[in-house]
Amino acid sequence: MAQRPIALAVQGGAGPISLESYKRNRPAIGEILGKTAPMLVDGASAMQVVEEAVRLFEKHPSFNAGVGSSLRYDGSVQLDATIMDGSTVMGAGVGAVSGVLYPVTLARYVLERTPHVLMVGEWAAQFARECGMELVADEELIVPERRRLWERKLAAKETPEDQVLSSGGTVGAVALDVEGKLAAATSTGGLVLSLQGRVGDSAILGAGTYADAHSAVSCTGVGESIMRVLMAKVCADAVVNGMSPQEAAELSVRVQGDNTPGTSGAIVVDNRGALGLAYNSENMYRGYFTPAEGVVVPE
Amino acid sequence: MAQRPIALAVQGGAGPISLESYKRNRPAIGEILGKTAPMLVDGASAMQVVEEAVRLFEKHPSFNAGVGSSLRYDGSVQLDATIMDGSTVMGAGVGAVSGVLYPVTLARYVLERTPHVLMVGEWAAQFARECGMELVADEELIVPERRRLWERKLAAKETPEDQVLSSGGTVGAVALDVEGKLAAATSTGGLVLSLQGRVGDSAILGAGTYADAHSAVSCTGVGESIMRVLMAKVCADAVVNGMSPQEAAELSVRVQGDNTPGTSGAIVVDNRGALGLAYNSENMYRGYFTPAEGVVVPE
Repeated sequence: MAQRPIALAVQGGAGPISLESYKRNRPAIGEILGKTAPMLVDGASAMQVVEEAVRLFEKHPSFNAGVGSSLRYDGSVQLDATIMDGSTVMGAGVGAVSGVLYPVTLARYVLERTPHVLMVGEWAAQFARECGMELVADEELIVPERRRLWERKLAAKETPEDQVLSSGGTVGAVALDVEGKLAAATSTGGLVLSLQGRVGDSAILGAGTYADAHSAVSCTGVGESIMRVLMAKVCADAVVNGMSPQEAAELSVRVQGDNTPGTSGAIVVDNRGALGLAYNSENMYRGYFTPAEGVVVPE
Repeated sequence: MAQRPIALAVQGGAGPISLESYKRNRPAIGEILGKTAPMLVDGASAMQVVEEAVRLFEKHPSFNAGVGSSLRYDGSVQLDATIMDGSTVMGAGVGAVSGVLYPVTLARYVLERTPHVLMVGEWAAQFARECGMELVADEELIVPERRRLWERKLAAKETPEDQVLSSGGTVGAVALDVEGKLAAATSTGGLVLSLQGRVGDSAILGAGTYADAHSAVSCTGVGESIMRVLMAKVCADAVVNGMSPQEAAELSVRVQGDNTPGTSGAIVVDNRGALGLAYNSENMYRGYFTPAEGVVVPE
């Protein structure tokens, strides 16, 4: 009897990633997959696995989400995240929320405990408190490397406008579980030097994250461009229309690149466990797990 | 020589609208078209015309946008709006912003004066001030009828959950101008009794509003459902794939109704001036203008 397929892919951001940075952070991708792939094998739901994978990214200081988030123009930190359950086509997000170490979990609380799809700003933080989440000061989310980048860009008199073509820096995960259910999650500290109150693609169903009965998708890159083309929805619709996940990921990246500025990447898994990973930037932090190949993190 | 086609459609919300309400508010639709159709005839851009049509709705106390907005659970008013230019596939929105009488104009400022696609909460209000917009107290946006509805629902111990299946109540406009450019705009006071910080479809490109080189779309109805299916993008994609605007509007409404709770409506215009108007609710405030038919407001 054939085993039911399962699969997991993660991304830690696409953009102008140097080979040195890629090599330095590559082991973290392997560790995150090493912790979450066994959950999937042991029967955890796709929703549990993508949430945990994104939490591990959020906790890791090297990626632009949770600890290690980008600083806004004014030096503050505001976070976006989404999670979506393909089996119900229900998802939710939080946008421009401060003080939350695990925004992906807050997005899950919005999904489970409110009738809403998007909660933003101070009210999302207040809701986090009501859910029993401990809020932290910006200082606990800011790492020296991100602060230096912010200081360097301010000193160079760069503006929010200058950043839109630079790397988004997002983390995300997509999974197919043993019950055949799909889920996707995405989280980000947003764009360095962006204006306070800016919400990017990682908070928006259809932009940074989408999941339905056919596939689950997480996108990364220039948020404003991803929002204008609805990149995750483009990818998911391509799978519905018969493309393989790899073809769909490549199509969605091409649609972004052909129609809007900047670069992007996408990871996608379909309901048979086939994976797609594509990007039009220099590189994308990425890796995946399938029972046949085990954990794979490209060199 | 054939004249270049122009066309305009507006919607003032779909839902459980009584025949009495429909008849009472029908003249306002005619007045709004009577003021904006001549602009289009005189050569105004689609962006100018959809903004002005939505501003007239926002100013009118009978529609759930600007003056006449729904009250949140706590009695406050927070507004969502978007505007999108099909000729550039660029758009922007504001979400959960208070004190702004004309949120559609603030959305245009986000589009023109920031590199961002979505600005929310107090920061969007601060940006409005920086743009020279006068902020008003909630009291100036609340009309007695909306306050009574809120009081009645609170007295009946209804919750935010109870409202998700009720009418969204949105206003919107789509237009094709003499230069062949398309634009769409949508604005709302949101869902009565919704939680503060909730952002709905009217703030999101691809959900409540979309425009590209082929069509411009504005949707209304249950925001959370529209956000999950990306209803405006579904409609716009259907036009790209060869459907007539009417077929596309009907498809998008069907996709919403088949996959998510509640009801919705859509208005769409394509780049040849053909219109589509569809809804699966009891009724939808709506009307349109074409040079051949003049201003039409269905009985």
